[in-house]
Formats: sequence, structure tokens, C-alpha cells
Amino acid sequence: MSLPTTIEATACCVPRITSVLTAEDAERVSRVFKALGDPTRVRLLSLIAAGAGGEACICDLTEPVGLSQGTVSHHMKLLTDAGLVTREQRGKWAYFALNDGALDAAADALRSV
Amino acid sequence: MSLPTTIEATACCVPRITSVLTAEDAERVSRVFKALGDPTRVRLLSLIAAGAGGEACICDLTEPVGLSQGTVSHHMKLLTDAGLVTREQRGKWAYFALNDGALDAAADALRSV
Repeated sequence: MSLPTTIEATACCVPRITSVLTAEDAERVSRVFKALGDPTRVRLLSLIAAGAGGEACICDLTEPVGLSQGTVSHHMKLLTDAGLVTREQRGKWAYFALNDGALDAAADALRSV
Repeated sequence: MSLPTTIEATACCVPRITSVLTAEDAERVSRVFKALGDPTRVRLLSLIAAGAGGEACICDLTEPVGLSQGTVSHHMKLLTDAGLVTREQRGKWAYFALNDGALDAAADALRSV
């Protein structure tokens, strides 16, 4: 018998029961980590984390990583799709904010009790 | 001016100053996440986390993931190299234990304050 445990449950406030992830949950968790398995995306997240209020304009992200806005936009789309950042359009520019919850939930799914 | 912050410092007990990761640190952090960016390796870690004492024999890992011992050994080597598990040989079998510290350090390097 296997105990079905969702990622949501492990990230929440209930006492955590360590159980083996289903194939579907493992697929979902690995997608979050895959988005983080790239040094440029890690630096972009670190730039956003260091930004005022934990957010940054895409216009301030291109220069520090030395890449074109198109390339940075591509990386930011992968991070947004993985739920690691949220995107908000303000006039001409897109602003990105860190969503710690996605990383926490993925990490919690792997922790031992 | 950039504040050099090592992964060790962010994982430790000192008050964390959020600063932008260097290219070298980002490379190191992304390697940990890359090892986790695969559903089979996520399941293997979850099996180890659910094992008695947070450890598991390789002999108990092959059947649940439905892969050969050679393939599982390959995945376990990648997880060991990334520092996510430790390996101990006991007679005929290798036992693996979770090393939460590696994941925590990588995750902490990305968090906002």
C-alpha cells in the first residue's frame, strides 16, 4: 500500500508524513529543479532576490548576465512556467518577483523527517 | 561594488545578506539542481527519504523504479557527486543516506530576505 502524498501537503502546515512520491509528483518536482539546473537562471533568480522588495525589472537583468533581452526573456519564461517567479507587466517593462513557495515545496518533497 | 557571498555563508548561521551570486557560485548551485532535474532521481531520493533512518540499500531501490541496478547505480552516482546523498558500502551492498544540507544550501542561495 502506498500513501498518496501531494506536494501541497508537504509544503503546508500539517505534520509531514514521509512517503514515496508518485511518478506524477516526481515529474512535477523534477520540472522545478530542471528550471534551476542552469547557471544563468540561477544568477537571474539571485539578481531578483537581491532586488528591492525581492523583485526586478527585466531591463535591469540583461546587463549583469551579459545576454540579450531576448535570451533573458526566454530564461525568465522557463522560470515563470516552473512557478519560481511571477511576472507583472508595468507599462513597457516586465517585472519579476521571486516565488519562494515553489522552491520550498519542491525541496520539502525530498526531505527526510 | 558587489558583495561576495559564498554558498557556505548563506547556508550557515550568520545573518544572511542577500547579494548576487558570482558566476562560480551560480555554476555550483545549478549543478545540484541539475542532478534533481530528473524524475527518476527525484523518486530515488524520495525512496531514500522514506527509508528507515533516512537511508536505503541499493538492493531496495531498483524494483520500485523499475530499472536495472546498473541504471540505478548511474543515477545514484550523479546524486552522490552532487553531494545530495552519501554512500556507504556494507559488505555486498551500497547504502545511501540523504544529505539535506546540500539541497538546503542550494535553496538558501536563491531565497529572498
